[in-house]
Amino acid sequence: MANNLLKGKRGIIFGALDERSIAWKVAEVAKDEGATFTLTNAPIAMRMGEINKLAEACGAEIIPADATSIEDLENLFTKSVEILGGKIDFVLHSIGMSPNVRKGRDYGDLNYDWLTKTLDVSAISFHKVMQTAEKLDAMNEWGSILGLSYIAAQRTFPDYSDMAHAKAMLESIARSYGERYARLKKVRVNTISQSPTMTTAGTGVGGFDVFYSYADQMSPLGNASALDCAKYCAMMFSDYTRMVTMQNLMHDGGFSTSGITDALIEQLKKD
Amino acid sequence: MANNLLKGKRGIIFGALDERSIAWKVAEVAKDEGATFTLTNAPIAMRMGEINKLAEACGAEIIPADATSIEDLENLFTKSVEILGGKIDFVLHSIGMSPNVRKGRDYGDLNYDWLTKTLDVSAISFHKVMQTAEKLDAMNEWGSILGLSYIAAQRTFPDYSDMAHAKAMLESIARSYGERYARLKKVRVNTISQSPTMTTAGTGVGGFDVFYSYADQMSPLGNASALDCAKYCAMMFSDYTRMVTMQNLMHDGGFSTSGITDALIEQLKKD
Amino acid sequence: MANNLLKGKRGIIFGALDERSIAWKVAEVAKDEGATFTLTNAPIAMRMGEINKLAEACGAEIIPADATSIEDLENLFTKSVEILGGKIDFVLHSIGMSPNVRKGRDYGDLNYDWLTKTLDVSAISFHKVMQTAEKLDAMNEWGSILGLSYIAAQRTFPDYSDMAHAKAMLESIARSYGERYARLKKVRVNTISQSPTMTTAGTGVGGFDVFYSYADQMSPLGNASALDCAKYCAMMFSDYTRMVTMQNLMHDGGFSTSGITDALIEQLKKD
Amino acid sequence: MANNLLKGKRGIIFGALDERSIAWKVAEVAKDEGATFTLTNAPIAMRMGEINKLAEACGAEIIPADATSIEDLENLFTKSVEILGGKIDFVLHSIGMSPNVRKGRDYGDLNYDWLTKTLDVSAISFHKVMQTAEKLDAMNEWGSILGLSYIAAQRTFPDYSDMAHAKAMLESIARSYGERYARLKKVRVNTISQSPTMTTAGTGVGGFDVFYSYADQMSPLGNASALDCAKYCAMMFSDYTRMVTMQNLMHDGGFSTSGITDALIEQLKKD
Repeated sequence: MANNLLKGKRGIIFGALDERSIAWKVAEVAKDEGATFTLTNAPIAMRMGEINKLAEACGAEIIPADATSIEDLENLFTKSVEILGGKIDFVLHSIGMSPNVRKGRDYGDLNYDWLTKTLDVSAISFHKVMQTAEKLDAMNEWGSILGLSYIAAQRTFPDYSDMAHAKAMLESIARSYGERYARLKKVRVNTISQSPTMTTAGTGVGGFDVFYSYADQMSPLGNASALDCAKYCAMMFSDYTRMVTMQNLMHDGGFSTSGITDALIEQLKKD
Repeated sequence: MANNLLKGKRGIIFGALDERSIAWKVAEVAKDEGATFTLTNAPIAMRMGEINKLAEACGAEIIPADATSIEDLENLFTKSVEILGGKIDFVLHSIGMSPNVRKGRDYGDLNYDWLTKTLDVSAISFHKVMQTAEKLDAMNEWGSILGLSYIAAQRTFPDYSDMAHAKAMLESIARSYGERYARLKKVRVNTISQSPTMTTAGTGVGGFDVFYSYADQMSPLGNASALDCAKYCAMMFSDYTRMVTMQNLMHDGGFSTSGITDALIEQLKKD
Repeated sequence: MANNLLKGKRGIIFGALDERSIAWKVAEVAKDEGATFTLTNAPIAMRMGEINKLAEACGAEIIPADATSIEDLENLFTKSVEILGGKIDFVLHSIGMSPNVRKGRDYGDLNYDWLTKTLDVSAISFHKVMQTAEKLDAMNEWGSILGLSYIAAQRTFPDYSDMAHAKAMLESIARSYGERYARLKKVRVNTISQSPTMTTAGTGVGGFDVFYSYADQMSPLGNASALDCAKYCAMMFSDYTRMVTMQNLMHDGGFSTSGITDALIEQLKKD
Repeated sequence: MANNLLKGKRGIIFGALDERSIAWKVAEVAKDEGATFTLTNAPIAMRMGEINKLAEACGAEIIPADATSIEDLENLFTKSVEILGGKIDFVLHSIGMSPNVRKGRDYGDLNYDWLTKTLDVSAISFHKVMQTAEKLDAMNEWGSILGLSYIAAQRTFPDYSDMAHAKAMLESIARSYGERYARLKKVRVNTISQSPTMTTAGTGVGGFDVFYSYADQMSPLGNASALDCAKYCAMMFSDYTRMVTMQNLMHDGGFSTSGITDALIEQLKKD
């Protein structure tokens, strides 16, 4: 499937770590749909990842950037506009990291410096990306900016800890900057709230397997995959969705509006 | 813009009355995107409308159907499958009518027979469409069914009267049948909550101009047009959105998450 | 616990069937808090129930009324005002019934006459109650009207079938009539979305035990009981909540914002 | 009105600045309802305020605390338990401050150090309060903790700037800590989303008068006052609401579910 949905569009894709990453799949789909783009990730993440393979396959240049650094973001936008030959039409922000989660810190014993880090990396960076793009006038009119979120922004998943707050803030930033960017440049800003996904980041969360399977049972269409998500992102970058903005879009096989399912009842009955 | 998004897909489009109708625009976009489909409307609406012009332009057959009649719906699905040469991939339900609104009946003086009519035409018909399709096994796997809704399902717009309840019910039916159809056939069901639109139906509501302008001022991207909505529907019918189901999707230029805007403040300051 | 919260207030309580009913508990609590009120139920429900015991204990008169009959409702309000010696301060609507659920009809094979009955009894009756009260000018300023709802209005619970639509509509009516009644008489209208409850009505739904236990595990405080709900209703009838209107209030031990719990994970791990 | 709702309960009230403060009114109502409590505020706010008058009127001690300092919070809880003679039953968190708003910084030119300050003071402090209370085992079972929020957590109000993100995070913390505290100690945690209020803090936001009047017109019961809010808080601290947790409760005269009102239409028509 490829329909030239993004023909002539220029983008920046944050967060491709390895081939399980949603951002990786977005890059592949965007390439198939005719877009050109640059790839970026934190220097440290790039050392761990295999982003070079992706860049080669997509004919994309890599521009390392710490998304919490205004200087790095300025360099990223300036270089991307140069390399791609014009202003940017779409941006994917797929960045999240919590030291409290990584180091297994209990939610009732949060390290507040780490919480600040969680927010800076996972949420405030989204504002920084947009503030930098606006100041450099680097976005085209009717451009589309997406952040990746999770339903922990609305409901509690204890293992997700302070990432829940980062996602709540990320969605709030999408609304506020979305209002501003719509007014100024007709740019739309949304978040996609994706099913739990078998990414390297996702599987780092404790008890992931049981949780993944529960989400799958509770989603009438099952969990959405990284590739499904990438296709949905392509749609949100295309000109078919120009009037959708300031929304958090559930991409979850129905999980968010499913109260209970026969599949779960059957399993619970076994006990 | 046309990208063969719906190439090879077969559909049924309810509710095209005249060229201002959202359903009319959906038909035009679906045609451009490579779909084949049948058109349908209530016999009485067809007499008032100009659906023949649309049918000709789209190479589509018209099958009259009262969407509250199971018999008519059975005929519609059976004939559509025959004519189109296979099962159905997408359905647009764009039907709504309230005798209480039409006849200017006050919300504190509702005629309850008319309310029953409002619900039957505007909401229960959506269930009937799906129940009939399921019984006839007329939908393809991974098909997509859309109903058109309005934010009156969540917030009060006094002139909208009992249509608010019909829309709340419509969205509830999308969730419930969506759960069922996902489980049985991987069919997804969603509603699109569209900006106020300058359709023949829309403009029938009292005080529409002031209200339309207010919504426009409160929407950072402005009100979405019928054509914008049609493009979004095409995307929701396409294979780019397979894992989105049981959702009410705001297509409103940001209205739903906008609390106040500078544009409105400026106008209110004038007084 | 009793604090004269409702001292001097007059009410009408719909739906007390037996001592497991929420409405029964509301009557007991309202009595303890100093209110006077009338009790009402459908004639047929009264034959099955034990409402006379309750009436005696509360010193309340019973006025039979089919809540779908305007005539009965007129009689109910007129007589209640007479008996209680003044206009009404609070109303509890705790009425719901679905022939499709009772008779085990599949959601993909709904009987549409029965669906109309479900809506008429469970949702439209709420509008009728308020329209009648308004026409008779039977409510005091700053009065409070409550309907009992369930989270099936937002998420799918397959066994709940068409009751989900009735609850979605009930909540919509609370908003619309709430807007109107606030404007006209400062009366507030809300719904309370209650945990699954071991009432005679509740336990009639298929697979109730497994479901009840699931909801309990998913609610950090556990399921709320009928008595808990009655206390919350008393508070919503009191003058402490005068500015809360047009809301659906979750009274559910946290179920609605709980995505997964350790208790559930432990159980799922067993398999 | 006073009903001994909080008889025997011990509390801590953050944020009383002057007699227009919501926290000030909460203290007065709590006193009337039979509670004992300590008052606290940031040392700097106390120099500006008149909290001594309040303390005297309520027979309450003042314990200065910077709510971002764990050390101060430990002292606050330890001393409060000592002074009040037992564990704490209720806490009001009414704290918010944004340097970006105060200094008129544009949302497209945020100072990120100030944003970190906004979050620390207005949201993270809520977590710190609860983490400290839990570690000191300072809360009684069935205690109630409230934070004050605003609908900017859901919708955009451009002048509210980064406070929107703080409120989104505050509500997220209420859910997450609410889940935890329910499980551990049956303590409930909620936020109240209050109408715009004529407090010293509220009126500091730009264009407040036009905005206040718009909110009033859009709220069928009008804007809720600080005193109304205080009564609602008392209710949420009482034993009548034990099973309500992890909720954001709209206390707004209906604003949040009001799409448009006749009052606003009339004003807009004038132009």
